[in-house]
Amino acid sequence: MGIVVQKYGGSSVADAAGVKRVAQRIVNTKKAGHQVVVVVSAMGDTTDELIDLANEVSPLPPARELDMLLTAGERISMAVLAMAIQNLGHEARSFTGSQAGVITDAAHGRAKIIDVTPGRIQAAIDEGAIAIVAGFQGVSQTTKDITTLGRGGSDTTAVALAVALEADVCEIYSDVDGIFTADPRIEPTARKVPRISYEETLEMAAQGAKILHLRCVEYARRYDMPIHVRSSFSEKEGTWVVRAADVTVVAQEESKPMEAAIITGVAHDRSQAKITVVGVPDKPGEAAAIFRAVAEAEINIDMIVQNVSAAATSLTDISFTLPRGEGQTAMTALSRLQESVGFDSLQYDDSVGKVSIVGAGMSSSPGISARFFEALSEAGVNIEMISTSEIRVSVVVAETQVESAVNAAHAAFDLGSDEIEAVVYGGTGR
Amino acid sequence: MGIVVQKYGGSSVADAAGVKRVAQRIVNTKKAGHQVVVVVSAMGDTTDELIDLANEVSPLPPARELDMLLTAGERISMAVLAMAIQNLGHEARSFTGSQAGVITDAAHGRAKIIDVTPGRIQAAIDEGAIAIVAGFQGVSQTTKDITTLGRGGSDTTAVALAVALEADVCEIYSDVDGIFTADPRIEPTARKVPRISYEETLEMAAQGAKILHLRCVEYARRYDMPIHVRSSFSEKEGTWVVRAADVTVVAQEESKPMEAAIITGVAHDRSQAKITVVGVPDKPGEAAAIFRAVAEAEINIDMIVQNVSAAATSLTDISFTLPRGEGQTAMTALSRLQESVGFDSLQYDDSVGKVSIVGAGMSSSPGISARFFEALSEAGVNIEMISTSEIRVSVVVAETQVESAVNAAHAAFDLGSDEIEAVVYGGTGR
Repeated sequence: MGIVVQKYGGSSVADAAGVKRVAQRIVNTKKAGHQVVVVVSAMGDTTDELIDLANEVSPLPPARELDMLLTAGERISMAVLAMAIQNLGHEARSFTGSQAGVITDAAHGRAKIIDVTPGRIQAAIDEGAIAIVAGFQGVSQTTKDITTLGRGGSDTTAVALAVALEADVCEIYSDVDGIFTADPRIEPTARKVPRISYEETLEMAAQGAKILHLRCVEYARRYDMPIHVRSSFSEKEGTWVVRAADVTVVAQEESKPMEAAIITGVAHDRSQAKITVVGVPDKPGEAAAIFRAVAEAEINIDMIVQNVSAAATSLTDISFTLPRGEGQTAMTALSRLQESVGFDSLQYDDSVGKVSIVGAGMSSSPGISARFFEALSEAGVNIEMISTSEIRVSVVVAETQVESAVNAAHAAFDLGSDEIEAVVYGGTGR
Repeated sequence: MGIVVQKYGGSSVADAAGVKRVAQRIVNTKKAGHQVVVVVSAMGDTTDELIDLANEVSPLPPARELDMLLTAGERISMAVLAMAIQNLGHEARSFTGSQAGVITDAAHGRAKIIDVTPGRIQAAIDEGAIAIVAGFQGVSQTTKDITTLGRGGSDTTAVALAVALEADVCEIYSDVDGIFTADPRIEPTARKVPRISYEETLEMAAQGAKILHLRCVEYARRYDMPIHVRSSFSEKEGTWVVRAADVTVVAQEESKPMEAAIITGVAHDRSQAKITVVGVPDKPGEAAAIFRAVAEAEINIDMIVQNVSAAATSLTDISFTLPRGEGQTAMTALSRLQESVGFDSLQYDDSVGKVSIVGAGMSSSPGISARFFEALSEAGVNIEMISTSEIRVSVVVAETQVESAVNAAHAAFDLGSDEIEAVVYGGTGR
């Protein structure tokens, strides 16, 4: 009898009906013979409502108190979920992050997990109860204050608890069936990927796929904890996120060619903007000054492209992408540098999007980038910036062309075809 | 520089505007040179909304989880209040009941305070911060689970913290100016009582005056902690609840006759119902059987009247009052006894009300009851039941006559008159 950790997001427990549906699913897992630990997020829009309330009394709510406030959201959902389970005749006990032993540093709003000591959780499941744990929250090791883990916090709580409890699997539930070869709202032939490596998942997430947060995947990868991404609205198998070697093993068992996995999926991201610093003197230290200014403004830069300087002028252009929400701050920080660095002007474009192809087999398969760029060209998509990693090629295009670019890439690598998917991933579940 | 504990109820912090107003008041107290500890209830209707949510998923929510759920309400209000104070430029830190050291037994929903160990609160105020503490909640000494104190819990938290911190005073804020000689909505000449003894306050509260809960007054009386009942909507002095001797001392200092205090106020209660068990055989054990059945159904009985039995029949009638919400349960429990006890019938009347006069001087002043009953009679009010204590006389009347009864009693004891009030209570504050 193994331990299963399940995490349900806010959309799965948006209202009483959702809570009851999730309770039934948890009870089914328990009845199937597992010890069950559930991590739950705040119901529906609760967190946003609490933030609104905070802003009503304070333009810049202090971080310690904001954490105290926001953790009320999970407290509500976990207690209600425990009630719903007990109403189905099964013992359930809810625990705050602190009670569950989620020990963090003292960085309010973005605390890092230092340790997990789930003694009370282990005791509860050993006594036959279902343990319900508040996601997203912990307690500071030094100050004993309540902390929150920041974005993706509940997923990370679930994986960290799964690791500490030596669970068989961490199931992450949302309202989608798993990880897809592309966003099905854009690409109608997109298919669910049955099995994907931690590394590919990280690249997909970093490039805009919204299923899992980077942080929880990194944690799972570090401790080799399998994640099963699935929908709380269906009984279907979802996507298993596992070690690259385990992806290979399944393919092998099913007599699939071992090196067939080239492209796993197409990710896109519409949340970025592009800043171009025009006419930067092409001498040492200028780029450094620019990016130091941006870093000091705490802007998260993604792609950077520097053009070769025109020989005649010794001037170059530097472009980079960043989250749109940080665009104004970055432009302000940069304009202060205009005189000292001596560049000509700043251009800001928030009508851009990023499209990426991700695949573990890419590095050993020449010609992938060429095939990607040709497909974009044939679809009339103009490439503004390019960046690559070992298992990814990303391009920045006009936002209006994101959809065409996703469709073109998806088709170019036959991601919608049954055969190819079968060749690449074959297995469904473990 | 003394410690002041202030408690704000849900109506004082019903919305963001209320929170800001209360924050300003707290800051003013701090600026006046006090160390300030604030106990706060859940905002407005939060608790009721959370109970509704619980009932949506479970007809009988388990008590441990209901406590976990309800404590989210104070968590929200205390964090938001701390934010609002910080926004005024003063350091404020919020603490859960558990963090504040409110240790209770494990009786969920009606936990009793066993100990208060306010180390973190003392440290916070010693560092110059304002401490905000969640009312109504604690942590079980044995199970380490979160508990709630039940009705009046926040008032009790405030008094218990004031005692543990050796505060100068516990200020209890609501939306009324203090304790009145009668409910001003019924009696237009009702006057605020500047100073009242714990004992009289207990009787007033027990008889339906809604200012303070019995439990918090009992706690304050046991440890001799002065309570200042006042409105968060005005700067006026409210009512000081103190030792009887201190009431006398002030009267003496102000050269008032020492034994002038006869009647302090008139309380009324419209939440009661009356059950009459008709035709009970007048022999030993019958009344006991009836009240054992009612006790086993966990009904809280208030007044009991047994008529003298009619000699001819050896049958008697037993009447008692109880909260209306428990009427159905009591009637069901009693009907099951009809055969074994052999009474004739049950009568249920939920159109009754209780009117009481309360005053410490009553026991040494003969004729008080007579004056009360005469006044009621002159006002055409019919008395259905009577009960008395050392410092109280209560009558049950038809609900439609409650108002007339209050007015008649108020007038009979000159409670609306300036002179009398001055004679009795004179002092305003300490």
